[in-house]
Parts: sequence; structure tokens; C-alpha cells
Amino acid sequence: MCVWAEGGRRYMVFEVFLKGTLFFPCEPDRGLVRVHELTPEKAGQLIWVRARIHTSRAKGKQCFLVLRQQQFNVQALVAVGERASKQMVKFAANINKESIVDVEAVVKKVEQTIESCSQQDVELHIERVGLSSALSDHTTDKQTDRHAHGGRTDGRATVNQDTRLDNRVIDLRTTTSQAIFRLQSGVCQLFRDTLTNKGFVEIQTPKIISAASEGGANVFTVSYFKTSAYLAQSPQLYKQMCICADFDKVFCVGPVFRAEDSNTHRHLTEFVGLDIELAFNYHYHEVIESITDTMVQIFKGLRDKFQTEIQTVGKQYPSEPFKFLEPTLRLEYSEGVAMLREAGVEMGDEEDLSTPNEKLLGRLVKEKYDTDFYVLDKYPLAVRPFYTMPDPNDKKYSNSYDMFMRGEEILSGAQRIHDAQLLTERAMHHNIDLEKIKSYIDSFRYGAPPHGGGGIGLERVCMLYLGLHNVRQTSMFPRDPKRLTP
Amino acid sequence: MCVWAEGGRRYMVFEVFLKGTLFFPCEPDRGLVRVHELTPEKAGQLIWVRARIHTSRAKGKQCFLVLRQQQFNVQALVAVGERASKQMVKFAANINKESIVDVEAVVKKVEQTIESCSQQDVELHIERVGLSSALSDHTTDKQTDRHAHGGRTDGRATVNQDTRLDNRVIDLRTTTSQAIFRLQSGVCQLFRDTLTNKGFVEIQTPKIISAASEGGANVFTVSYFKTSAYLAQSPQLYKQMCICADFDKVFCVGPVFRAEDSNTHRHLTEFVGLDIELAFNYHYHEVIESITDTMVQIFKGLRDKFQTEIQTVGKQYPSEPFKFLEPTLRLEYSEGVAMLREAGVEMGDEEDLSTPNEKLLGRLVKEKYDTDFYVLDKYPLAVRPFYTMPDPNDKKYSNSYDMFMRGEEILSGAQRIHDAQLLTERAMHHNIDLEKIKSYIDSFRYGAPPHGGGGIGLERVCMLYLGLHNVRQTSMFPRDPKRLTP
Repeated sequence: MCVWAEGGRRYMVFEVFLKGTLFFPCEPDRGLVRVHELTPEKAGQLIWVRARIHTSRAKGKQCFLVLRQQQFNVQALVAVGERASKQMVKFAANINKESIVDVEAVVKKVEQTIESCSQQDVELHIERVGLSSALSDHTTDKQTDRHAHGGRTDGRATVNQDTRLDNRVIDLRTTTSQAIFRLQSGVCQLFRDTLTNKGFVEIQTPKIISAASEGGANVFTVSYFKTSAYLAQSPQLYKQMCICADFDKVFCVGPVFRAEDSNTHRHLTEFVGLDIELAFNYHYHEVIESITDTMVQIFKGLRDKFQTEIQTVGKQYPSEPFKFLEPTLRLEYSEGVAMLREAGVEMGDEEDLSTPNEKLLGRLVKEKYDTDFYVLDKYPLAVRPFYTMPDPNDKKYSNSYDMFMRGEEILSGAQRIHDAQLLTERAMHHNIDLEKIKSYIDSFRYGAPPHGGGGIGLERVCMLYLGLHNVRQTSMFPRDPKRLTP
Repeated sequence: MCVWAEGGRRYMVFEVFLKGTLFFPCEPDRGLVRVHELTPEKAGQLIWVRARIHTSRAKGKQCFLVLRQQQFNVQALVAVGERASKQMVKFAANINKESIVDVEAVVKKVEQTIESCSQQDVELHIERVGLSSALSDHTTDKQTDRHAHGGRTDGRATVNQDTRLDNRVIDLRTTTSQAIFRLQSGVCQLFRDTLTNKGFVEIQTPKIISAASEGGANVFTVSYFKTSAYLAQSPQLYKQMCICADFDKVFCVGPVFRAEDSNTHRHLTEFVGLDIELAFNYHYHEVIESITDTMVQIFKGLRDKFQTEIQTVGKQYPSEPFKFLEPTLRLEYSEGVAMLREAGVEMGDEEDLSTPNEKLLGRLVKEKYDTDFYVLDKYPLAVRPFYTMPDPNDKKYSNSYDMFMRGEEILSGAQRIHDAQLLTERAMHHNIDLEKIKSYIDSFRYGAPPHGGGGIGLERVCMLYLGLHNVRQTSMFPRDPKRLTP
């Protein structure tokens, strides 16, 4: 099969006219109808569609196809008769699954709903079919059947995760993957639109940095010409520098790198950070309110604009709809500890939350307040980084917070110390080498407004919103200690 | 000066009540007016403003201040009288420049326009002033004077670029920098909004990759646990995999890494790529039209929504307004070569454009067509990467294109080969080790639609749109072979 032929505005692929002749070049300006546009209103129309062969089943003098385009599919029929020859039916039946075809067909309303397709009220009666991109024979059965179909006809994969990730291109074609990543695109858009409307400025922060912050643990090293550099573990320092530079309210969306040998359902070595930092007027709760309102706008936007995607994912991975309150529930750390103790957990006031305790607290909060999203405020100072602002009223605690979705942490944030002297004192208290963080501390010597912020993990938000159980499902090409491909 | 004190909703910084007493805690819910809101409509009102001391000039019993907030500033006056003591005037005069102050003041309409301020029709008569964030004495004169003011009172820096970049936090406070990066934020937003409206999906591609594409030149190496990895030189492979995975039209905004030892005005080792890839129906010119229309929407959006920023930058760096045509001018490479030859340049048909020739051609195109933006289409096949689709009508050329702003390249793109067999042949022709690009070639074995795209350099677009002359001016924290800080 030839693959190109351009010039003028001719068609770039051969087509096979299935009454026996090759037709080529075809009309270049014929419109292509999208599969999701195939509704009973189009009944009787002769249209062109380009789609993949999802399934194919020959039966006597006819061949039933399911044509798939992204998360939508439609049934199609080639039958021997006035418009199609015996050879054409045979040809259509022999096209490898996952090949891309152009078909000319009449839209017909069906008597009985087609449960297995997204377009349930119509089918296509094919009059011409051309092969737009064929699969070579040896690849078909080996790969595409297992991944795109997984032995089922509903487009949901049943194969194991590593196999799916190894063949990610095919796995991403499933209706579930199409829905997940369309929703992820929506999260980014809602995040940015909400913040832009609040007067935030988008910034671009460097990923190659000269010094590892916070002492150099869990950081990837890069060869940089004749020297070494590091990959940024967070854009925090640069966000703060933008605040010192009077940008007032900033956000950024970009990769974050963690050289952590954690092989869990929720850790990646590279993930996408949705980061916020803002100067506040009088109280760091202004920062919490900005962030929680942004999250609420994301939740509402997903609920209102991405129902199709939520439903599609729910067919393969059923979960309870995501619940949230407005305004967002804010509990103090000590209240959280009290709830855990009441449930039988033994822990100290200044002890950090373990992952099981985080999840348990999530369940207790859900029972008591009926929300899947809440803020835990005023963490013990001892368990937070050196740049965290202490609580001025109780030095045991700090002006810092985590946010949780379905009992798992999606954001960690705080009011930052904006005074070089206090920052130096706190770094010394943590036994941090002052020489290594000199440029960070110096940023605050030229007048810095009080500020705070936080970083949100995009893949976690998508995973937890949809009630999925592995962050690799919401990372298009996940990176972990054991996976660098594709 | 103490830096924090929170609790309840008390104020988090000390203030000095300048009639001699300390007032603290102040009212936390007093509204803060933004400097750009200070217009004659507010005349007579007593308001609070938080801003930086931009300049300060004491003269007898009064002190004139200019208060700056981002790209806006306003004149303010403290004068001995009923509302202010002699000590207060002295105190105000002694506050270090670049400190952040809260002032309570009456807005007064002025008789004569204040040319040196953005708020030209009003001034503030200060009644109270509090220090929100002070500069330590030893830092003031040494740094901030040189950078934020550069010896001038209009907020435009005159110091050299390295000094400015070394002290980027202060340099970013200048009205010019504030305007540049607000406009850059706008470019990203316009890019994404235009594409989202066209049905594109935003994707997130990995930056840590297992194999260096295109043979491994100019790529940064990363230590990855017990093995090595690389930093992605472009998201192209991943964009193409998304097309093979039926996402149809995708874009991404993210860092791109080039280990190229180029020390020029337009090269960075890390820059932000605005990347597009789409399947097309019948002709790769559909791709060019999608991209050029996106650029035109960006140019229009900047012209219509960012005039303040364009004017602000123009005060320090005057340039001709950016001109573009609609639809965008598209020239074939051979036409460009003919224009250059007519202007006396000697070059072969299949020779690549040198940088001086690119600029010359830009000037010739501007003279003839009056546009600062155009597409050069159908590059010689010999000067393009192996994955570029050849022109089916003339094997000397290819279905590839560059786009130029003010005579400098901002995008390189092409129709990509979507057939594994042809791709293999072209790679062999380029003497590329097939083993190294196996996974890339394999991506096309499961049915790929015809597609094309390109990558735009964000910093170059901002630099050339504003008529600036160094890409480091439009990179917030630039990275080049000699610079890794701040």
C-alpha cells in the first residue's frame, strides 16, 4: 500500500474502490463527518467518515464493522447487493483491525438500540471503502487485539498494567484512556483560567538548576557542559523570587523531578506540578482560600463540562462521584489528631501523619462531613521544611497545610518565611549548610512581601477525582525508578 | 523590624505610626487600593495602599516619594502639618528605597500632569505610613539603586545585562520587565485558548527520556538511579505517538533542552516550547493553516489586550509595531532563494539558509509584502531531518516549512513520515543507526494517520514581537552554556 502522493490538493494515500477498481485521486474537498456527529438527524445522507476498524465480523454475504474514532464508535455494514460486490465484502472483512479507513456510506436509523456502540441509534451502510493507513500483517494479532480490545468488544482493556504501558500508543486509543487524558487537559485549563481570572500571572521557571535545594537528597544530577547541575524538585524558589520581584500572584504548570526510589501507586520520578504562590495582605488564610477556591472551580468545571469523560471512565473503573463542600472544609491538625485518637490511633501531637493514618482520617472526615476534599491546617513545625513560617501564637505549630482528595495528599503548602534573618535562624535550627542556600536567603534581602503557596500534583488530582488507584493511569508516559520508556 | 505576628486576624508585620507611636495590631480588613486604580474619581478619598518606595526626595519640611506597584507608580507627599509631624517626615525620608510600605493617604487631583508617573493626574497626601518589609541598610545602595533604578527615575535599567541577570529579582521589578513577562503570560494563554477552541487536546510529555533521538548530539545526560537517561530535546516523538493514539490534534507547552554550546543572542540551553501536532485530512497545508492562524490570533490578542505592556517596553526599547497579514504570507523556498539571488546573494537550490541570509530575506519580504511574519515552505529535502516527508512531486524538496518573525526563525515544522517502511528507508539514507530509533519507527506500525506539526520558541516569539535583541530579556531565569543562576 502506497503511503503518500501529494501535489496540487490530491489525496495523500491510495484508496481501493471496492467494486474492483482503484479510484485515485479522489475528491480532496469532500467533508469528513466525525463519528460523534452520526445521529438520526443525518439518516438518509451519504457521508464520508475516516475511522479505525475497531472490530470486524464477516457472516455470509455481509460484514459487520465497528468503526472507532477517539471515545466514539458506530456500527457499519458492507453487504453484497446493488452497491457492493462480493469482492468488496471480502476485502472489507480482510482489513486488519486498527487500520484507518475512509468509508462512504449512507446513514440509517436502526430499529433496535445498538448497546455496544456510542452511536446507538444509527448504523452506516457502506458503499465505498478505502484504506487510509494499514497495519502490517505481523503486528495485528500480536499487539492490537490484546491491547486495544483486550478480548472484549467494548474497548476496555483487561491486560495488565506493564503490558499496557509497554504498548502505550495502543493503550491510549481505548475509550477509557481517551477520556482520562481529555479530562486531564480540562484540569489544566480550569486551573489556569481560574487563576488568570483572579489576576495571577503565569510564569516559566527553569528546570536545570545550579544547586540542589534542601540539602540535595532525591535530586537528579545533569551533566552540564564541563560542570554538573540538577533537575528542579519544585519551582518553589523561583515562584518566591517572582513574589520578591513584585509579580504579586503567580502560577506555573510544568514538570517536577524527584529522584526518590519509591515504587508505590502514587509516586512518579517525573510529574506535572500545578504551582501557586501569592503575596497576601493580612493573613495566610487568604492563600488557603485562593487555592481551595481554585480547586472548587476545577471540581465544578469537571462536573459540568466533562460528564461524558467521567461516565466513560466509570464504566471500566466504577467509583463514587467526587464530593466537595463550598467553602472547603478546613480542619486544624490537632483536630485531625483528635479524630484519629477517637478512632483508636495512638500518636503524638507533633508526629507526622503516616499514609495509613492519612487515609483513615480521609474516611473519618468523609463520614462526618460528607466531603472528599478538605484542608488540614497548622501542621507541627517540627515536620515541615525550614522555610515554613512558625505559628506566632504557638511555636509547636506552623502556618502550613496539606490538602487531601479521597484521603490522599494532593498539595503541600505554607506561608513562607520572607525575612532573611528569621530564615537563617530556622535553617541553622535544621542544621542546613547556610552556604548551600545562600542565594535563596539573599532573595529576601531586598524587601519581600508576606506570601505563601503550594504545589499540586496533576496526576494525583486526576487519579483521585476519577477514583482510580494508580497514578500511572493518569500519566501519559509515566516515569518511575523502573520505567523510562516509551 | 519584626517580621511576623499572626493569630486571630491580626496584622503580620509591625507598623510604625509616624506621629511617633507604634500602632499594632492594625485593622486587618481595611481594603488595599491598587496603584493603577488611583484616578481622579477617587479624589478626596482616604485610602490605604501597599507599594514599594521607588524614589524618595526630602526637601525642607516635606518629602516626595514615588510609590511603585508592578508597572504602575504614583507620586506621594508627606508634609509637616496638621496630619504629620516633623519626625514623621524625617522617618519617611529615611526609609530605604525598595522597601514595602503601607500608607494611609488622601487622593488629591493635581493641576499639572505628573509626567514621570503612570498615575499622572493624582498624588497621595500621606497621613500614616507603616513599614511592611524593610531592606537592610547594607544592601540598599549597593544593589537596588543600580538595578531597579539604574540612576534614572523612570524605572528603566541602564546597567549591563549580566549584572541585571545576576540580580534578576531586582531587575524583574522594573516596569519593562513587568510588562515583558505579563505579555509572555499572554502569549501562552492566547496560544492555548486558540488551540482549545480548534478542538486540540493539551498533553504532558516526559522530559526524561531513555534514548537520545536523532543520534544523540546536543543532548544533556541525566544520572537515573543505576543507569543514564537524557533530557528531551523536543516533545516531537511524544506528540507523534499521541497522533498515533488517535488524539487527532494535540499541543503542549513545556521546557525543551539543548546541550548546544551556542553563545548567541537567540540560543538558550533551556527554553519553553509551544508545540503543535495534528492529523490532517487531505493536505499538509491544513497543518500550516492551523499554525499560522494560531500565530495570527496571538498577534491580534497581544495588539488588542496588551497595548499597555507593548507601550511600556517601547519606552525603553523603541521598535516598529509588529506587522502581519491575514491570511499569512506563504512563500516557497525556491521563491525565497530567487529573491536573495536578485539581491546579489549566491547560493545553490538545495543549500540551507544562513542566519544572515534569513535576516536579509526577512527585510526583502518586509519591503515587498509589508509583513513581519511569513512562512517559507518546501525546504530542500537534503537540509531537513530524516523523518520529514519528501515532496511527492519533486524529490529535491520536502513538505516542510519554517516560520519567521522580523527575519528570525521562530518555528520549524513538517509533515512527518507516518509509514514505518518509508521512515526506515529515509533513516538508512541518513546513515542513522536503526537500532537507536527502533521504538520511534515501531510507533507507526499500528496504523498512523498522516500528520504534521511544529515547535515554536516562546522566548523568541516574545523577543521578536517586541523588537528586542536578546532572548535573555524574555526568559525569566535564562540558561545558557555560561549561566546556570539564579
